[in-house]
Amino acid sequence: MTTIDINTSILDLNEKLASANRTRFDENGVFVLDLMASPGAGKTSTILATIDALREDYRIAVIEGDIASNVDAEKIKAHGIPAVQINTGGACHLEANMIQKAIEVLDLDDLDLIILENVGNLVCPTEFYLGEHAKVMILSVPEGDDKPLKYPNIFQISEALILNKYDTLPVFDFDEEAFEHSIARLNPKAPLFKIAATKGEGVDQWAAWLRTRIDEVKAGNACD
Amino acid sequence: MTTIDINTSILDLNEKLASANRTRFDENGVFVLDLMASPGAGKTSTILATIDALREDYRIAVIEGDIASNVDAEKIKAHGIPAVQINTGGACHLEANMIQKAIEVLDLDDLDLIILENVGNLVCPTEFYLGEHAKVMILSVPEGDDKPLKYPNIFQISEALILNKYDTLPVFDFDEEAFEHSIARLNPKAPLFKIAATKGEGVDQWAAWLRTRIDEVKAGNACD
Repeated sequence: MTTIDINTSILDLNEKLASANRTRFDENGVFVLDLMASPGAGKTSTILATIDALREDYRIAVIEGDIASNVDAEKIKAHGIPAVQINTGGACHLEANMIQKAIEVLDLDDLDLIILENVGNLVCPTEFYLGEHAKVMILSVPEGDDKPLKYPNIFQISEALILNKYDTLPVFDFDEEAFEHSIARLNPKAPLFKIAATKGEGVDQWAAWLRTRIDEVKAGNACD
Repeated sequence: MTTIDINTSILDLNEKLASANRTRFDENGVFVLDLMASPGAGKTSTILATIDALREDYRIAVIEGDIASNVDAEKIKAHGIPAVQINTGGACHLEANMIQKAIEVLDLDDLDLIILENVGNLVCPTEFYLGEHAKVMILSVPEGDDKPLKYPNIFQISEALILNKYDTLPVFDFDEEAFEHSIARLNPKAPLFKIAATKGEGVDQWAAWLRTRIDEVKAGNACD
């Protein structure tokens, strides 16, 4: 009997397309960030705050992934930043072929940073490499401190972690010590940034980390 | 070329197993609820509040679905209610075969209500029938009022909708009118229950709806 492992072949194809995306990003010196979180954790708000912190020094575009609607892309465009909306039509994650199509409408030569807002989900986006330089996840305080126990993989594969809605800590029963203990165990190297995106609080340190990463890719390009 | 639609055949098999589950539930007069929500929307807290509201009149068990960990099942057991933990090992939803195995360790004859706590996800759980009598979704206020626009399907297929963490409305920029307008458009028949599960607020109306549904299934059994 011949067994075809469909999952593996889908992931293999995705990996090839993602590598091609990555080559294009590197050739153009564009740093690409894949931002992952639950629905409503504040991905779009974090992106808007990040844009505010970096827009004077970097040229930014955003690719929005959603099952349906274009509300997020409209918010980004209203902020004066180019945005491409991808509707996945049911898929719970972005895939490399979607990014390949989205970057056709962006001028990579004129960009330093592309932020990919993945579909709101703590599971599916972890399995798909899109060609990004870093995956970063956002957890929001209202979601609870036990999420690293329930969704360990997304905490493990992220290069940095953002704890958003940090200003609402007094309202929720969120055990900060237990949370930090869990992520120290799962991913001791990842920095944790505590922010309140809608108020712009704590965004500076996160933006500083991102600046370092963007500059590395720009420098790599300059040396080619 | 022969094309095998893997998704369809997986869903077909799931459907068959789900129907078999449903037959067992009906034969035993057990009402089964599939509870869906984002990570951290308050599924477990809502289940605990529901147990408190119904435990004097109904015999209840809970099946917990998580990628990893057994923290939720432990919380339910600490509340004195039988709980079975399913670890999906990566899958972003429960499937009928998992439920089939879980009910082997429960005495259906001794139960009136089984609550299935699905994996925290607004996408994948919508596609899988488990044999339940009703799917219900919880949105929490911190997730934002735009979720029906982004994840329409889960709002459409739910028989009732719960808006949890309603007590935190003053803390968040949640447009209640816009939210209610969206769900009235997507699913005009579904009742909306506004609750604060951890405080037990608003749970009575939700519990009353559930009582009616449980009693229908129990009555169906009595007539057989």
